[in-house]
Amino acid sequence: MTTNDPVTTAAAPPPAGAPRLYVDDADLSEDGRVTLSAPQAHYLRSVMRRTPGDAVILFNGRDGEWRAALDSVAKAHATAVCRDRLRPQPTGGQNGPWLLFAPLKRGPVDILAEKATELGVSRLQPVTTRLTTAARVNAARLRALAIEAAEQCRRLDVPAVTDPLPLARLAEDWPADRTLFVLAEHGEAIPAATAFASHAGGPAALLVGPEGGLAGPELDVLRHLPFVTCVRLGPRVLRAETAAIAGLTLWQAVAGDWR
Amino acid sequence: MTTNDPVTTAAAPPPAGAPRLYVDDADLSEDGRVTLSAPQAHYLRSVMRRTPGDAVILFNGRDGEWRAALDSVAKAHATAVCRDRLRPQPTGGQNGPWLLFAPLKRGPVDILAEKATELGVSRLQPVTTRLTTAARVNAARLRALAIEAAEQCRRLDVPAVTDPLPLARLAEDWPADRTLFVLAEHGEAIPAATAFASHAGGPAALLVGPEGGLAGPELDVLRHLPFVTCVRLGPRVLRAETAAIAGLTLWQAVAGDWR
Repeated sequence: MTTNDPVTTAAAPPPAGAPRLYVDDADLSEDGRVTLSAPQAHYLRSVMRRTPGDAVILFNGRDGEWRAALDSVAKAHATAVCRDRLRPQPTGGQNGPWLLFAPLKRGPVDILAEKATELGVSRLQPVTTRLTTAARVNAARLRALAIEAAEQCRRLDVPAVTDPLPLARLAEDWPADRTLFVLAEHGEAIPAATAFASHAGGPAALLVGPEGGLAGPELDVLRHLPFVTCVRLGPRVLRAETAAIAGLTLWQAVAGDWR
Repeated sequence: MTTNDPVTTAAAPPPAGAPRLYVDDADLSEDGRVTLSAPQAHYLRSVMRRTPGDAVILFNGRDGEWRAALDSVAKAHATAVCRDRLRPQPTGGQNGPWLLFAPLKRGPVDILAEKATELGVSRLQPVTTRLTTAARVNAARLRALAIEAAEQCRRLDVPAVTDPLPLARLAEDWPADRTLFVLAEHGEAIPAATAFASHAGGPAALLVGPEGGLAGPELDVLRHLPFVTCVRLGPRVLRAETAAIAGLTLWQAVAGDWR
């Protein structure tokens, strides 16, 4: 899964049977006609063997989730007509946690993007740190993976993928009301579940460092920022992407939308 | 990471700098000489460029964790002498949760084995179900991945990897005191964190179904077993390996060794 090109796997069939597609550029409303992208047309026609009249499920992050019927399915062009709305878009926009992460190698960062999306993250924010080894962040690839995961897990939106930000500049524009939980491998830290419980429902972000951890001075600076709480995740050394997945799981269960 | 051959990646360097190696067949005691495996010798000599006198960290799942000094390092043969014990083996044996899972494709099952080991699972138990798509389980590969992950995450043991068991025969030899939490995608289920909290400290197992979920009749049979509790993990549809990782994380945080 994680090693495939995201374009060819961007629209795995949802469990319900009807392909579920993210249509960012289209407005969705009753009887509205939607033009699908060329890769989506290819996927529907050549991979899923769908023909006009077949059902698809559409969402765009704004208008909720719609059942639609395919109208035309050609090699690089397909259209669908919205029939009925299955779920409304929640009001208030995206309120899932943000995930800040140091760039990782391709395999681990693919896992991180996919699983974080399944776990309801609202923003994937790469940050560069002293010990960052993987220099380049392929934001387009992360976006494709996030879309694929959102289609699969039945989310009604897709997390934002932002450009990399140096860790040293993190505090400059940080929203004062958003708690940043730093997953610290050493030094003083409180158990994540305890820290999360005391911030339940509020805006949150999790920061996971690179393989090898955050440098001591970086962690010292972070500790003194007013919006930072250092937390730990058990007695074992977790890989960066494991820590991200575990941190998001705990946040959602203790303080987020799993409650 | 997950796509490499486990043999070539079986001994990634631990964060502390000294290679950390699992030596199943050796006894570890003060001044005791340990013969390392041929792949370990190759890894130490050709990948890590270690020479006699360099430090390694050894564990075997029985005698705790030892600092040792390399004694000889040849192409396919290496020995080390134990110097001092860094950590004792905990008494009482492995008490982490078991993970029962339907066979998955290679990428996802690799992720599952690696992350479950990091999260302290004590047994990886494949189970075959009606909707199982990946027929074959490569137990040797899973064991290699579990060893690699145990070396990296600083565990003092390696989870057992058992042979596949048909789901229908699960109840035959089930230990009566071990609660089996079934991660159910549909039907009645209580939030996992709530269910786990009420079983804190007791023996536990988690069961995650195949992609596509457990069949309705399978879930019905499971529900009526006296040791089964059906639990759910939030509002989104999680991939099988994501559900396994999230379930183990929650167990450890709420009822296991992260408390």
